[in-house]
Amino acid sequence: MSDTNTRARSRSGGRSARRTLRSTRDITMLPGLTRAIPYCEVMDGSQVEKIDAASMDILENVGVQFRDPIAIEDWKRAGAKVVGEMVYLDRGLVRDLISTIPSDFTYHARNPANNLRLGGPHSVFVPMTGAPFLRDLDDVRRNPTLDDLAMFHKLSHMSPALHSTAHHIVEPYDHPISQRHLRITYSSMKHSDKMFMGMTTSPKNAEDVMDMCAILFGEDFIETHPVTTGNCNGNSPLVWDETMLGAMRAFCKRNQPVLCSPFVLGGANTPASVPATVAQLNAEALSALAYTQVIRRGAPAIYGHYLSTVSMKSGAPMAGTPEISLMNFMIGQMARFYGVPWRTSNTLGGAKTFDAQAGYESATTLSSVIHAGANYIWHSAGWNEAGMHCSVAKFVVDAEQCAMAYKMARGPQWHDFDQALAAVPDVGPGGHYLGHPHTQDNFQQAFFMPELFDNNSIEQWMAEGSKEITQRALEYARKMLADYEEPKLDEAKNEALLDYIARREREIPAASELNQTY
Amino acid sequence: MSDTNTRARSRSGGRSARRTLRSTRDITMLPGLTRAIPYCEVMDGSQVEKIDAASMDILENVGVQFRDPIAIEDWKRAGAKVVGEMVYLDRGLVRDLISTIPSDFTYHARNPANNLRLGGPHSVFVPMTGAPFLRDLDDVRRNPTLDDLAMFHKLSHMSPALHSTAHHIVEPYDHPISQRHLRITYSSMKHSDKMFMGMTTSPKNAEDVMDMCAILFGEDFIETHPVTTGNCNGNSPLVWDETMLGAMRAFCKRNQPVLCSPFVLGGANTPASVPATVAQLNAEALSALAYTQVIRRGAPAIYGHYLSTVSMKSGAPMAGTPEISLMNFMIGQMARFYGVPWRTSNTLGGAKTFDAQAGYESATTLSSVIHAGANYIWHSAGWNEAGMHCSVAKFVVDAEQCAMAYKMARGPQWHDFDQALAAVPDVGPGGHYLGHPHTQDNFQQAFFMPELFDNNSIEQWMAEGSKEITQRALEYARKMLADYEEPKLDEAKNEALLDYIARREREIPAASELNQTY
Repeated sequence: MSDTNTRARSRSGGRSARRTLRSTRDITMLPGLTRAIPYCEVMDGSQVEKIDAASMDILENVGVQFRDPIAIEDWKRAGAKVVGEMVYLDRGLVRDLISTIPSDFTYHARNPANNLRLGGPHSVFVPMTGAPFLRDLDDVRRNPTLDDLAMFHKLSHMSPALHSTAHHIVEPYDHPISQRHLRITYSSMKHSDKMFMGMTTSPKNAEDVMDMCAILFGEDFIETHPVTTGNCNGNSPLVWDETMLGAMRAFCKRNQPVLCSPFVLGGANTPASVPATVAQLNAEALSALAYTQVIRRGAPAIYGHYLSTVSMKSGAPMAGTPEISLMNFMIGQMARFYGVPWRTSNTLGGAKTFDAQAGYESATTLSSVIHAGANYIWHSAGWNEAGMHCSVAKFVVDAEQCAMAYKMARGPQWHDFDQALAAVPDVGPGGHYLGHPHTQDNFQQAFFMPELFDNNSIEQWMAEGSKEITQRALEYARKMLADYEEPKLDEAKNEALLDYIARREREIPAASELNQTY
Repeated sequence: MSDTNTRARSRSGGRSARRTLRSTRDITMLPGLTRAIPYCEVMDGSQVEKIDAASMDILENVGVQFRDPIAIEDWKRAGAKVVGEMVYLDRGLVRDLISTIPSDFTYHARNPANNLRLGGPHSVFVPMTGAPFLRDLDDVRRNPTLDDLAMFHKLSHMSPALHSTAHHIVEPYDHPISQRHLRITYSSMKHSDKMFMGMTTSPKNAEDVMDMCAILFGEDFIETHPVTTGNCNGNSPLVWDETMLGAMRAFCKRNQPVLCSPFVLGGANTPASVPATVAQLNAEALSALAYTQVIRRGAPAIYGHYLSTVSMKSGAPMAGTPEISLMNFMIGQMARFYGVPWRTSNTLGGAKTFDAQAGYESATTLSSVIHAGANYIWHSAGWNEAGMHCSVAKFVVDAEQCAMAYKMARGPQWHDFDQALAAVPDVGPGGHYLGHPHTQDNFQQAFFMPELFDNNSIEQWMAEGSKEITQRALEYARKMLADYEEPKLDEAKNEALLDYIARREREIPAASELNQTY
């Protein structure tokens, strides 16, 4: 398999080579990650069964609240015990329903070269979404605009290890909230030919996204091909609300996958125990996964979660803590036990600037979700300040971190082991390898060289302006954007999309309130 | 098992609690880590055998240069084929020799409560050593003094997850280099009752360290109890020099463990291939491990390495790259294959300041060495700028990171699973757990709360002075040092040590040159 990232690196070597790089940057997307390292599994078989049994007990005896009359009627028809808004799910029913969720499937992008398999060993990196602020190209924290969102979609497009443009990476505040989902979706579709996510801010907004996907891909095509992803957050403990369930129905009915994501703040809305938190989260995810199959048997669906622990000082979410890693390992085991692809969150953190805290938090999370074997690795670039801002500097660094994690997860490469070993007697004790032909032919393929880490001497670093990583990353992002070339939409489809948006904008009242928390 | 770190955390909650913390900080050392999560093993059995066979081929056919007449004579007596300084080691001889290295053993500290097991699932965190500069309590980069070294020994003593004071964390430039090892060793012994490392800067210096250990622990005691650790770096490819071999003999003869550490800059002094680099490194480590048993059959020894990849731009060492993680996973497998404890390097990185680069590099490395299952986890706090400086701010943050990794590696805690689950029906859908008795009793044990990460809102953070992690960490370090209490040495032993140092300082000429690179 070719490693485009390493190929891009191979052009870099000194100032003139870097100048060339600017106009020849290889932005080819890395193929979806097919992992070749083992999963970190911290439970034995009996512990997996313990979690499963505890979750099923919760579903049968505690029940899940579906605050949505349509879902309640759906559940009655499906044979669940229903009391008011409370749904009690028999484990047999749950197991039967989730059995039809595909264990893996292929996402289709408008450029088929960017299609991606998901599930089993197949994983993708998706940038963060939902930030009400950004730290911009000058590291200034402010409210974002549609242009800022376009910038992040362009950076996503140009980052080889990012497999999607997501959707509202930042909230475009210069556009009325009630119509925003149309412009967000269009920006995702327009600025990149990778896959993207679909807004689930209301059932009607989700329908609009489905309609726009039908324009871009064809109504028949999306009936049989996943082309986008919706996220539906649960209200832990054990509640699903009308907005999320309605959006879920919009996606499932059109056969588009949703992330069934309990929103867990460990210790605040779950028990103060790692295994018990996982048991509750697992029950919540199963209840929504089962409901996707009530909506449409065989529709793709993804075991999701947002997962944090909370600070006892402030109630604020924390990241990079040991329990979050452990819960990711355990949730991965549960999702594989059920044979369902799973989503996690990457690069989380609570730092207010792109300081060392942000680095520790992000790298710890990235490493853990890779070892956990997550499939849909969301929030993979830009997240900072507990999701309150997306940082341009952090975005490009995180994207490179994903490229490194990608290479690590592919495992050691043995293809030239014998040739490489043959260099050992050639060089001999006390010799140097840099001049050896095998080294010259293979160095850049063998060893990843990060662009955004500075490994020069302090003297060289000072001569180049004593730039910390934030400054270097912002300069790098500016260069990327200067090189951006739009992968043009088909003209007829572009017009149809714009017509659709214009019509819907006439139909939808332009409410002016902000919505930061979707 | 009690988790002292979490107990310390449990006292913290708001400003007045933090004020109390200052006088009651729990500095009890965490017991040596006994891991309960699986190893990340990226090779199958046949690949392990491939590396083993390649390494044995190198030892038999390429040979290893021992630039030391005593070692050459030793090898002849041991039955190796010797041509000049080249030693060719038959695989049968190697396997026989390494078979007597203990697979695990117990380190003894002057406070027996701080004794530590090493090998198999038992690991320890040891701070960095060897920095020619520090970034001090004001984040100023300058040459260190003996007082600065004492400061780091005190911080090591007070960090629950650091299991050792190491030795020359920073180079005390205010003391003549020829006599420095005496003062360094004394500082390690005096400022903490944890274990420490022994200088190997020359065979004679190593003898001095052994003599000082004999004074502190008793000559008979050290004959049968490991009390310190020496590091012997190889010159890759395939060379061991007189200084290191002489120091190795000084330690092994007194039954004290050495780290047999090839010094690998992947691609520069090894082939441009991950598996071939591991094969060469493995051959180098085996040759030194075998030699420890030529010196003294049954002496404890540790499979070591310093491992980096080099930048093609500058030749500088890199850290946090995917290949370093993969090689750590593979080396761990090889060490376990031979049944020998192994050492790796933690928190490496090339950042010039404590910026986000430092955070990413350190956290990536820490995570990888934990998943790799390293036993002697050296350079676990303070390393920055490719080891050119030790940062006070980074030191205390790294120490907390080790405490988090420690908790992660212990795996999920199931002891109160049923009680925690019982809270789920109590709280019910849509409820809150923070007021539940199980939560109140178990929260702080269940979820680690880092002191050095700020997870407050940006408003709160600004109200507290908009402090990035460097500033917060330096304030934290000052508070720790204000609380430091010396664990007094036995008076007679203290006098004997000072007498020994005085005598040796009279005997050793006070050379004035600096030595930054040991």
